[in-house]
Amino acid sequence: MLEEEKKEELLALLTGKKYRELKSQLVEMNEVDIASFIEELDSEKTVVVFRMLPKELASEVFACLEVEQQQHIITSITDNELRAIIDDLYVDDAVDMLEELPATIVRRVLQNSSPDTRKLINQFLNYPENSAGSVMTAEYVGLKKNMTVEQAFDYIRKYGVDKETIYTCYVMDEKRRLEGVVTVKDLLMNDYAALMGDIMDPHVIKAYTTEDQEKVVETFNEYNLLSLPVVDGEDRLVGIITVDDVMDVMEQEATEDFEKMAAMLPSEKPYLKTGVFQLARNRIPWLMILMLSSMVTGGILLKYENAFSVIPLLVTFIPMLMDTGGNSGSQASTMIIRGMAVGEVEPADILKVMWKEIRVGMLCGLSLALVNFVRLMIQYPGQVLICLTVVISLFCTVIIAKTIGCVLPIAAKTIHLDPAIMASPMITTIVDACSLMIYFQLACHLLNMKA
Amino acid sequence: MLEEEKKEELLALLTGKKYRELKSQLVEMNEVDIASFIEELDSEKTVVVFRMLPKELASEVFACLEVEQQQHIITSITDNELRAIIDDLYVDDAVDMLEELPATIVRRVLQNSSPDTRKLINQFLNYPENSAGSVMTAEYVGLKKNMTVEQAFDYIRKYGVDKETIYTCYVMDEKRRLEGVVTVKDLLMNDYAALMGDIMDPHVIKAYTTEDQEKVVETFNEYNLLSLPVVDGEDRLVGIITVDDVMDVMEQEATEDFEKMAAMLPSEKPYLKTGVFQLARNRIPWLMILMLSSMVTGGILLKYENAFSVIPLLVTFIPMLMDTGGNSGSQASTMIIRGMAVGEVEPADILKVMWKEIRVGMLCGLSLALVNFVRLMIQYPGQVLICLTVVISLFCTVIIAKTIGCVLPIAAKTIHLDPAIMASPMITTIVDACSLMIYFQLACHLLNMKA
Repeated sequence: MLEEEKKEELLALLTGKKYRELKSQLVEMNEVDIASFIEELDSEKTVVVFRMLPKELASEVFACLEVEQQQHIITSITDNELRAIIDDLYVDDAVDMLEELPATIVRRVLQNSSPDTRKLINQFLNYPENSAGSVMTAEYVGLKKNMTVEQAFDYIRKYGVDKETIYTCYVMDEKRRLEGVVTVKDLLMNDYAALMGDIMDPHVIKAYTTEDQEKVVETFNEYNLLSLPVVDGEDRLVGIITVDDVMDVMEQEATEDFEKMAAMLPSEKPYLKTGVFQLARNRIPWLMILMLSSMVTGGILLKYENAFSVIPLLVTFIPMLMDTGGNSGSQASTMIIRGMAVGEVEPADILKVMWKEIRVGMLCGLSLALVNFVRLMIQYPGQVLICLTVVISLFCTVIIAKTIGCVLPIAAKTIHLDPAIMASPMITTIVDACSLMIYFQLACHLLNMKA
Repeated sequence: MLEEEKKEELLALLTGKKYRELKSQLVEMNEVDIASFIEELDSEKTVVVFRMLPKELASEVFACLEVEQQQHIITSITDNELRAIIDDLYVDDAVDMLEELPATIVRRVLQNSSPDTRKLINQFLNYPENSAGSVMTAEYVGLKKNMTVEQAFDYIRKYGVDKETIYTCYVMDEKRRLEGVVTVKDLLMNDYAALMGDIMDPHVIKAYTTEDQEKVVETFNEYNLLSLPVVDGEDRLVGIITVDDVMDVMEQEATEDFEKMAAMLPSEKPYLKTGVFQLARNRIPWLMILMLSSMVTGGILLKYENAFSVIPLLVTFIPMLMDTGGNSGSQASTMIIRGMAVGEVEPADILKVMWKEIRVGMLCGLSLALVNFVRLMIQYPGQVLICLTVVISLFCTVIIAKTIGCVLPIAAKTIHLDPAIMASPMITTIVDACSLMIYFQLACHLLNMKA
């Protein structure tokens, strides 16, 4: 992060119109830090500072800015300046930006890009969301089988400066079909005369354009890659996915899981940039479904109206039973959902998982029941039967909650639903109904009441 | 992933004792795939296959195996074989393994490593858990300021083969203090005669050995790095952190957050490898705390015993109110906790966040209340006052839940607690007490009852 002190120093130079001094400081800085400085300026100063940057640095900084600033800069600069920036941007950065911009600005950007860039951008915009094609970049080093190490180095020196990752190069045949992979490390460790065909590794790990980005993340994690080639249906190389894009995808996928597991539809934008109506729209559907489901639990209680009008004390244990059941269940479901997300738990493990959770449930249930029994005997001495009703229900609730909590996410996965919807809120609603039924059924039996 | 077909083919060769053919197939494969093949063999066959691999490949495969297999191989091979493997392992892989192995085996491993390796391993074992020092690797390319590009290439060719990442090289002074960074891309783009001191970037982004690994992940994400140098208190370079290790840390940190947010202590090992007692130990503390807290809610209900013995119907709406309150609160808290984890939300945003959540709460509360009112008027026609009590309580509960849900995680962060403990379970317990208090207070007023 850029320190506050440094920011204020730069700001003082800017307001004091000491542009020469400001420029000499900026060119020494990292593009990420310059962008974070620019983001705090008002729109007029943004353009002043941005125009101060040398051409190449300007494109790098531009790629790091938020979409609002990018839009503002695009509308304030000349077509010539715009053309220079767009052609310098990596295609995947340009596409990310275009996906967020209003149509009129997109048109102006496309009009000002070279035909090649325009074609690439259009192609990228057409890949399905969250596919390998939508996160790949078109800038890679492609070599030929009959090139020598020396020729390869010359090629990289000549064309490599524009490529997002030059360290892994891909060897293709004349039809651009992927044949092998060569790292710069391989190039450095071999003779200048060695041929690509001899030193390349023909066992290339690759992805298809239509593959899901979650699959791509798994492949990166499994093989510890720096980049992954993406091929089309005919095995032709169309782009690469670099590790920094994969890290963004990982973060985004984890965020989506957090949101789904808290009964929300995933949001497109960061929290602070999402409008109130959008947030409400994401949250209401599940709240509504869960509210209507919990009325079933209310309906169960209705059946036992008689029990709690005879012994109203019974009602006061409802929150404790419901909360403990919900918490026990969501502990189990969270472990299983996360375990499946990172590939540690498979649906085939279901019996192993259930047997484990039942035993864990017995241990947890026993501890809670014991503590509760002691507390109840102190608070309500002599009411042994009521105490027993509460602690036996508690014990059963914990075991049932753990079992339901581990079975439902696995069941969801088996029928190709997202396991994340079987998280805490859904489990809680289901466990509530079970635990209250056990509780009042037990109360009626032990306390000799009619339901 | 290695396909099942290929696995069975290899297995057939192994059981048919066609070792020569098996070996020639194995040496063509990726080390990750070989490891996943070995992991399915019994312990005797594991050693047979492992001994078949050429020395260098053997170490690579060894690093990819699970700790049980590593332990089994270590106990089955000779000291000479062991020495070769340990000295070929990257220090951070060796340390990861040693942290899991029983003490007797650790002693045998350390006895069989060279004095240099042993010193490094011991040093690494001493860094605090989850610090930058504990995830870094000692294998990096260190250059001197007065080297030329040609000398640098020679140095990399000579020593680089052992280094985990050769693409980013670090320039140090004679006291090993970090002075600058040079990428292989820079080397390729410059003249052979250029000096490191001239082409290096002196603005190095670095970490300190004692820094938290979460901070390291943030730095990687912010600057899109491939590797990050780690320095000690005197700015001397001691190691680097590579992007593949950072991806592991990211996954591990997200898992920890999922666990904490579901009221569990984070576990060290994957779910299926964690024992039943350990799982129970991780889950009981929070279950106990939350159970005892929810008794407070029970105590509140006790105050209104009179109300629900007069109108038992009131009790049947408790699950709906509690569940909806809990869900609304955990939606808000999840968004804020995740927002803070990825650096999008800062404690300074508290007023902005509260104002947003209150408005979202009003929208959600209004929708739920309307739907509920219609349903109740159909189910209990004429009971207007009871229906009003329920829907007004529902509306207030949602708004209060959203507000508490966003305030508590930020408050926790402000007083340097982990915001993740203020997740769903804790919020639910607190919101329950509030919503039931509002509900019965309102009931007493609207329905003219004494508490």
